[in-house]
Amino acid sequence: MLDREACAALDEADPLGGFRDEFVLPEGVVYLVGNSLGAMPRRTAERVARTVTEEWGRELVGGWNSAGWFAQPLTTGDRLAPLIGAGPGTVVVGNTTSIAVYQAVSAALGLRPGTIVVDRANFPTDNYMIERLGPTRDVSEGFEGAAVVLLAEVDYRTGARYDVPEVTRQVHEAGALMIWDVCHSVGALEVDVAEADFAVGCTYKYLNGGPGSPAFLYVNPRHHEAAQNVLPGWYSHAEPFAFEPRYRPAEGIRRFAVSTPHVLSFAALEASLDLWDQVAVADVRRKSTMLTDLFIDLVGDRLELASPRDAERRGSQVSFLHDDGYPVMRALIDRGVHGDFRAPDILRFGFAPLYTRFVDVFDAATIIGEVLEKELWRDPAYRNRLAVT
Amino acid sequence: MLDREACAALDEADPLGGFRDEFVLPEGVVYLVGNSLGAMPRRTAERVARTVTEEWGRELVGGWNSAGWFAQPLTTGDRLAPLIGAGPGTVVVGNTTSIAVYQAVSAALGLRPGTIVVDRANFPTDNYMIERLGPTRDVSEGFEGAAVVLLAEVDYRTGARYDVPEVTRQVHEAGALMIWDVCHSVGALEVDVAEADFAVGCTYKYLNGGPGSPAFLYVNPRHHEAAQNVLPGWYSHAEPFAFEPRYRPAEGIRRFAVSTPHVLSFAALEASLDLWDQVAVADVRRKSTMLTDLFIDLVGDRLELASPRDAERRGSQVSFLHDDGYPVMRALIDRGVHGDFRAPDILRFGFAPLYTRFVDVFDAATIIGEVLEKELWRDPAYRNRLAVT
Repeated sequence: MLDREACAALDEADPLGGFRDEFVLPEGVVYLVGNSLGAMPRRTAERVARTVTEEWGRELVGGWNSAGWFAQPLTTGDRLAPLIGAGPGTVVVGNTTSIAVYQAVSAALGLRPGTIVVDRANFPTDNYMIERLGPTRDVSEGFEGAAVVLLAEVDYRTGARYDVPEVTRQVHEAGALMIWDVCHSVGALEVDVAEADFAVGCTYKYLNGGPGSPAFLYVNPRHHEAAQNVLPGWYSHAEPFAFEPRYRPAEGIRRFAVSTPHVLSFAALEASLDLWDQVAVADVRRKSTMLTDLFIDLVGDRLELASPRDAERRGSQVSFLHDDGYPVMRALIDRGVHGDFRAPDILRFGFAPLYTRFVDVFDAATIIGEVLEKELWRDPAYRNRLAVT
Repeated sequence: MLDREACAALDEADPLGGFRDEFVLPEGVVYLVGNSLGAMPRRTAERVARTVTEEWGRELVGGWNSAGWFAQPLTTGDRLAPLIGAGPGTVVVGNTTSIAVYQAVSAALGLRPGTIVVDRANFPTDNYMIERLGPTRDVSEGFEGAAVVLLAEVDYRTGARYDVPEVTRQVHEAGALMIWDVCHSVGALEVDVAEADFAVGCTYKYLNGGPGSPAFLYVNPRHHEAAQNVLPGWYSHAEPFAFEPRYRPAEGIRRFAVSTPHVLSFAALEASLDLWDQVAVADVRRKSTMLTDLFIDLVGDRLELASPRDAERRGSQVSFLHDDGYPVMRALIDRGVHGDFRAPDILRFGFAPLYTRFVDVFDAATIIGEVLEKELWRDPAYRNRLAVT
């Protein structure tokens, strides 16, 4: 088992070690919630300020052209594409994951009407959004007879990871279309949805785009012609500025845009992507598996593991089960270890490899050990339920 | 006819005169495009910076509670409500106007299936979004037999204004539901959609929320129980953090939320609403009619008026027709008068009363006169079509 010194040595040798200084992180906190909201890149403040004061303040409405706002859904899409194994002209950015799910499933059902297979473990919004689009059934019943399959690559509660190429192959073999939700994998591992039919994801977790930063939608080029956009706003029109009375879809991925981009939220995402341009995702994945393996080893049998033990089958988060998970997490946060709690009994810890150090893992595991061994979580103060996120 | 001195005297006496200093406006420019993208309030830069560096940077994921992000769609809705004549708990903010239109029309058709009456003059996105939701027909054929009517209070091209109470009454008498798009009226005049069934609007024009700032959706309380949200994301769930497998709608207006708010875009809107808290909309409307009347008088018969002559029937914009509208607008912008052009022949000038002065109107009209009399727009340089917004 590694001691703190050995962890410090791993940080020393870490090829991603230099990135930590690119982020603002509060003193005395081990932030293991980057799987929910990523930390703020230092450069973001300046980039957003520039968009506000220089672009909006000086260019005013001219910014739609001069500052590239109008093109953002597509230009940002092209920048994101490599992070999900996709090519240029296949990703459009904007709106929210919920809306992208609605677009993807609607488009898929337009191409292939029938039953939607979902995972009860999908983040609820995915399943809520599609409840009224058609009949659904759980993935545990297999893909036979399905028209459309919607799964999250990484389970938001357990961190369990699907084998994307293999599942995509099985789904296609069953004659269905495959939609991947990569919210909990993009920026944490080498996502590759190129063979899938559609994919959706958010940018505020491992990609550090900021609270409520825009979502994205991947549409496989083989569907660009036939698939329809259920939300055909003017941005997706063949000639938006012709202001034609009837809708006429644009060619290519722009057909799946909706409307005006949230420019300030895009600015923060662009700052973060400037950082991602310098990152090799293979390095991120390598460090992620080291961090999560180390964490599982160090916590040991003090807590029951809810995540797969095999790093190959896991995203960049580790979850444990505890009947008193809520007060345990409160006690940890009180001692500077920030994870989160998901009812009824899940303690989640996310490891964002760009800013999480091996010594952070060591310190977090040490504090977890102390809180559990001394039963510090039994303090009645930790039972008061606060609003949770 | 007023001279420049008389205009300066009007500015001196203007009860809204003090607000101009609250905005950043470029030197040497008369900005008459606030009906497209409002100017930047000075306070916005600081407010957005605080959200980035203090809230996100320091609170991290905790900001969803501590900084009020989670509640934004509703708290900002309550702040906007008075600007459209609505009460608390009836407006939800987020997403885009296109998406709000889709939600409103879908919900209305759920309550009252049938034909949708639209105005060919609606901003195209409104009509595009609903093309596939049901049969549509033009308002020129009247309301008889309609199920749902979707109209823009102020026409984006001509500035013509519907009589909202009267039309709402007629639509209800015909047994249909009324949806108002108030994008081009909110912040420019005393909008009152309280009697309507639904209303939608954006916040980046006269409200100065910034490029791509969030849209809003008003739902009359009489429909909160029966109307359905076609985009039932987890924010609209009765207990979002219960992560229940099936959808269960929240009570009240929260039922019409979708998903995660674009927090940075909300921050800019909140800064602008801090300013609007100090504004009496009656003053805004009074000044708006004075500004637009003056502009029409000063331009005189040099250009053919496309807007109603009667200020009562007009929003806060004045449009003229010119067969060579594109080069004319280019020549004006070159001389510091910023309006915009809408194909095929419309010159638009928007008057945002919080920062547009009477002397600006005088100067703009003077330059328009010069450009037309000397035919300065015939310069071949102005014929090159640039991308337009």
